[in-house]
Parts: sequence; C-alpha cells; structure tokens
Amino acid sequence: MNTLEKPKLDQILYSYQRLLHFVTQIFCTIGCSTEDAEIAAKNLLIADLRGVDSHGIARLEGYVRLWESGRINVKPQIAIIHETPSTGTVDADAALGLVSGEFAMNLAIEKAKQVGSGWIAVKNSNHFGIAGNYAMMAMAQDMIGLVMTNASPLVAPAGSVSRMLGTNPIAVAVPSGEESPFVADFATTTAANGKLEILQRKNLDAPIGWIQQSNGDATTNPHALKKGGALLPLGSDSDRSYHKGYCLGSWVDIFSGVLSGANFGPWVPPFVHFLPMPQNPVGEGIGHFFGAMRIDGFQDATVFKSRMDIWLRAFRSAEPIEGEHAVMVPGDPERAFEAERIQHGIPLLPSVVNSMQQLAQKFEVDL
Amino acid sequence: MNTLEKPKLDQILYSYQRLLHFVTQIFCTIGCSTEDAEIAAKNLLIADLRGVDSHGIARLEGYVRLWESGRINVKPQIAIIHETPSTGTVDADAALGLVSGEFAMNLAIEKAKQVGSGWIAVKNSNHFGIAGNYAMMAMAQDMIGLVMTNASPLVAPAGSVSRMLGTNPIAVAVPSGEESPFVADFATTTAANGKLEILQRKNLDAPIGWIQQSNGDATTNPHALKKGGALLPLGSDSDRSYHKGYCLGSWVDIFSGVLSGANFGPWVPPFVHFLPMPQNPVGEGIGHFFGAMRIDGFQDATVFKSRMDIWLRAFRSAEPIEGEHAVMVPGDPERAFEAERIQHGIPLLPSVVNSMQQLAQKFEVDL
Repeated sequence: MNTLEKPKLDQILYSYQRLLHFVTQIFCTIGCSTEDAEIAAKNLLIADLRGVDSHGIARLEGYVRLWESGRINVKPQIAIIHETPSTGTVDADAALGLVSGEFAMNLAIEKAKQVGSGWIAVKNSNHFGIAGNYAMMAMAQDMIGLVMTNASPLVAPAGSVSRMLGTNPIAVAVPSGEESPFVADFATTTAANGKLEILQRKNLDAPIGWIQQSNGDATTNPHALKKGGALLPLGSDSDRSYHKGYCLGSWVDIFSGVLSGANFGPWVPPFVHFLPMPQNPVGEGIGHFFGAMRIDGFQDATVFKSRMDIWLRAFRSAEPIEGEHAVMVPGDPERAFEAERIQHGIPLLPSVVNSMQQLAQKFEVDL
Repeated sequence: MNTLEKPKLDQILYSYQRLLHFVTQIFCTIGCSTEDAEIAAKNLLIADLRGVDSHGIARLEGYVRLWESGRINVKPQIAIIHETPSTGTVDADAALGLVSGEFAMNLAIEKAKQVGSGWIAVKNSNHFGIAGNYAMMAMAQDMIGLVMTNASPLVAPAGSVSRMLGTNPIAVAVPSGEESPFVADFATTTAANGKLEILQRKNLDAPIGWIQQSNGDATTNPHALKKGGALLPLGSDSDRSYHKGYCLGSWVDIFSGVLSGANFGPWVPPFVHFLPMPQNPVGEGIGHFFGAMRIDGFQDATVFKSRMDIWLRAFRSAEPIEGEHAVMVPGDPERAFEAERIQHGIPLLPSVVNSMQQLAQKFEVDL
C-alpha cells in the first residue's frame, strides 16, 4: 500500500473530467464506438484516481501502440463461447481489456444473481487496467468480487533464470456496512514493474529482493530487468519462501490463461515494449478470470455486513509498531487517493503530459 | 516446498497402514463413529504421507486435547444452514475439521456437478489438517479445487504488533493429463508455525523475516512467538511488500470466518496450547472455505488437460539458476514424499512416537 503523497513541484494537476474527456476522444478516434470508448476511459482512469499511476493514463500510449501493431480490435464481437449456470468462457475478440473486462464481470454478476456465484474466464484479451476496478463492480451489487489476470512474462519461478510469469495480480473486494470496505489489489511479485520504472526514471537502487540478474544473482540495479533479469515472486528468496509467490503467480496464470484458452506462461503477448512477441502461441491474446459471489448466498447480507464492520474496525484499531502510522486495511490508501484526486485533480509527471500532448497532436484531439 | 530428506538416525519408520489403524482406533475410542474415525484418520495422515510432518500425527495429541477441553463434538450433526445452487454455508457442529472438511468439499463438488461450480463456507469447525487434501478431492473429479481456512491468531498485520491472523493457508489443485498435476498448498505467512517449531526443538536461529518480537522489531529467535512476538505475513517486511501477505491472510480470514459465521481475526479459537481462548467470541469455532469448479464448465476437459500438460512441462523445464536443482511445480516435493513414504514408511521423531505411546496407553489402544 502506498502512502498518500503531495503532488511534486514538477507535476501538473488535471481534473478527472478533463482526462476522461481526452481519453474517450482518443479511443473514439482510433475507432471504438462511443459506448466502448467511454467504458475504456473510465476503466483506465480509475487507476489514476486510486493512486496506481503506473496503470492509468501513463499507459494510454501503450494501448495506442498495441492498436497500431494490430493487436487491438476496436470493433470486437465479444462472445460467450462456453457456459454452465455458474461458469463460462468469453472470447474477447482482441478487444481492449478495459472493455472485455467490464463485459466479463457483468456476466459473472448476472450468473451470481441467478445461481449464487458466477466465474468467467476470458481469452483473446489485452491489458485491462487495474484488477481492483472489476472486483469493486461486484462489491457494488452486494457481492464479493475476485479478479485475476496474466501479464507480460517478466517473473522467474523460484530457483530459475527463465522469465515465465507476469506480475499476475489478484484483486478481492468485499462489501461492508458502515465501515469503508476491504479492497485488496496486488501483484503476486515482491514489486510490480511500475514501481521499478519509477526507480529507473529517478536512477535509484531497488531494495534487495525485487529483481535478479540474468544469471539469477540478487541485484539492486533497477535496469537489470531490461538486461535479461527477472522480477522476483512475492517472498523474494528461498529463506523467505518465494516459492509461495511462485505458487500465487502460477495460480493466476492457470485460471486466467490455461482455463480460458488464452496464452499462458512465457507465451503471454507482452504489453511492455522491450519484450518481443513470443513465437508459437499456445492460445489467443492474454487471459483474465472474474468471480462474483452473492454474500446472501452464504448468510443474510445485513448480518454479514455488520460482521465485516467488526473485522474492519478490529484491524484498523490494531496496535501499530511504535513510530509507524495507524494500521491500514487493504484499500485504505487507494480510497484516500481517490477522495483527494476527485476533489483536487490528478497530478501527472511532465513525461506523461508530454505523451498525452503527442497523442493529442497525432489524433487531432483537444487536451 | 521442502526437499526430500532421508530419515534421520533417530527417526523410526512406521507403515502408513499401521498409523492409519492406530489413529482410527484413537478417534473411535474418544467416541467418533467408525465412519467418521476412518475419514478423520485418512485426512490427518495425508499430511504425514506428503511430508507436511507438522500437520499430521504429531498433532493427534492436540486433537485429543481439544476433545478433552470440550471443543470437539464427536457425534456432530453437520448441517447445511443456507444455500443457493452454487453456494452454501455449513454448520459443522463442532466436528473434527477432518470430518467437516470432507463433508463440505463433497457438497461443493455436488453443486459443481449441478451448476458448474460450488462454494461452501464452514463455521463451527476445528483444525482440518492440510488444505491441499480437500483441494485434491475436487481434482479427482476433473474439477479445480480451492480451499482456505483460518487458524490460531499468531500473525501481525503489516506495521502492527497485534496478533490478528492465523497462518491462513490457501490450496489450489488443478487436474492435468499425462503430467503430474499442479497442487499448491501454502501458509500466507513467510513461514508456517510448524517450521518454527522445528527450529525451537533444534535450538537453531530463524532467518530474518519469519518473526518479529513483541515490540515489532525483527528477530531470529524462534522462541519469540511464545513471548508475545508474531509471525510475519509473506513478504517479511515493508521493502519486500509484506502488506501483500497481509492481504492474502485477510482474504482467507474473511472467506473462512466472516462469510461462514465462524470466529475471525483475533477471536479464532487457537489450536496451539500457549494461546488463551479469546473472550467475547464473534462467531462459532473456526471457519473454512471450499470451492470446486468443473473444468468442462470453461472448456472441453481433454483440451484443458493437454493445455495444462504444456504449462507443466514448460515450468518443469525452465532453466534453473546455476547450482540449483531442477525447477519444480507446486506439488512436486509433496508427491515425491508420498511415493517414498507409501513404499518405505513414515519416519517419526522420538517425541512423536512418545506422544503416540502415551495416547495408546491412555486409551488402551494397540500401537
């Protein structure tokens, strides 16, 4: 969890509405329907609102790059290709993941309304922004949301030098009553690639345990990843059980990629520009996994929410280590960012503003 | 993942059949039906077979201790108290978790047969052995199994000195074709309490990152846990993202405890003898969560299994770090233990044999 930071002097504040309009226009201009463009813009910018700056508008040029290379279909026919009352598989038809993600979570929610829970695997998709966004869609319906996705192969299994997995995040969102809810959303690596990129830009060392060199040795050089190194699974090394992070990343890859018919493991088509497209694909696009469970599928919803409030209050009032801030619950830092940024605007780095200006000029869109 | 070790000189080999007979007799003698005793013995000893020595027959005296203190009902009326076609909640009636766990996973499997997936929360239960055991029950039915449980509060949230969570394991088992399957089963802490107990017995230091002292400072003293210290969430410290391990442990607690109506967080009734019973319980017993998803709820099962074989072969043939053993897939070490121990017997420490002998004498059962 990040702590809330004041905008730096060199950052420029943009209102959410202004960015929403801009991103919608860009997606419209590359050929998306107005409806899809609005959905995609909303689902992209929730990352900026919630302080996950690496996954928001900073990646807009990346989505455009994928479209230019023919990997994104702006007029997709998203289809359910297999289903039971509580499960199903969706072919995203190379849609923006920002669009297919919302489609699939809505389908999971509909199934949950009918039979208590819904579980949807998605193939032939692309990067979908932050996983927590879709998990929170279920939460708004008095359901628990669970979301996973596979991603660019940058992570080595425990004890290996091969890059076989993505940062493969998991998000879980749980409704509550009076207390702010539990929303966990985390990469299954020690550090996400976005955090490494920040260190690269600032030329700062990474803590030991985030990355290894191409031969598997520990390193603090944040540039090692672009020289054949790998991100490390959560746990960082064998003494601290990084085989468990490897278990987590593998689980996400299997649910998202193998189960859906997407690519998996080292065959996942990368979002990052410095990896080549893998040869001999084992599926189509990247894969996601979405789940929704009605809380009244287990117990009375009001009772559950009051129990969840007890849980949240107990953890928020746990005794901090001396000198540390108050104990937080997953979702608290992101909620603070969102409140701040909706009111005061989203601070963007000059490099991000510059890439927006280039897109504005290229597509003749007002910024 | 543990590596396979040869039995030490001071260990004594017992055949699985001999231990199965002994444990069944003990459970019968304390009042279980023959059927329940057989189920409980099988589900306890799978831990010894798979090399998870901390969770097997070494804990038999612990189950007896719980029964003696009135916390285990040997004649339970296990009941479904709430359900939809794909979800439900079970009241275990203070049964052995080894019995209620099998009941609940069978219910999840039945629901999956009907509507594609089944998700069961269990309250009013007790320790159920290893989570992977129940996940593998689903796997045997061409289903993916997902199992969680909460446990004795020994783990501090990130940045706290309060013991609020258990080691809260997650197990995921996935069917395959020709390759040995994926079976992940791991505590969401850096190290499980069982591993710490081994260091305590041998008077060895723990690696940094497993435990903290009562004031939150790092320590290598394995006895710190019994002096008010805490186990650390997977990740070990803030630089290595232990808030993610905290997310994982919390997720398990919410699904197992809050959703089911069991106790959760610091109110979970402890299995370990050195913690007092919490006051003012917020639910009944401990809680588990079981899921089963039919793989043909997502795609043709044969196609899925061949895809899973590709995944397994790719990861098993990933390049090891020089000097390291071959890259393993979750479940590989446990499978090697099981093959070895079924054939040659289960090696037990003298202290475990001693506790078995005491139980044999007390209950007048042959060992």
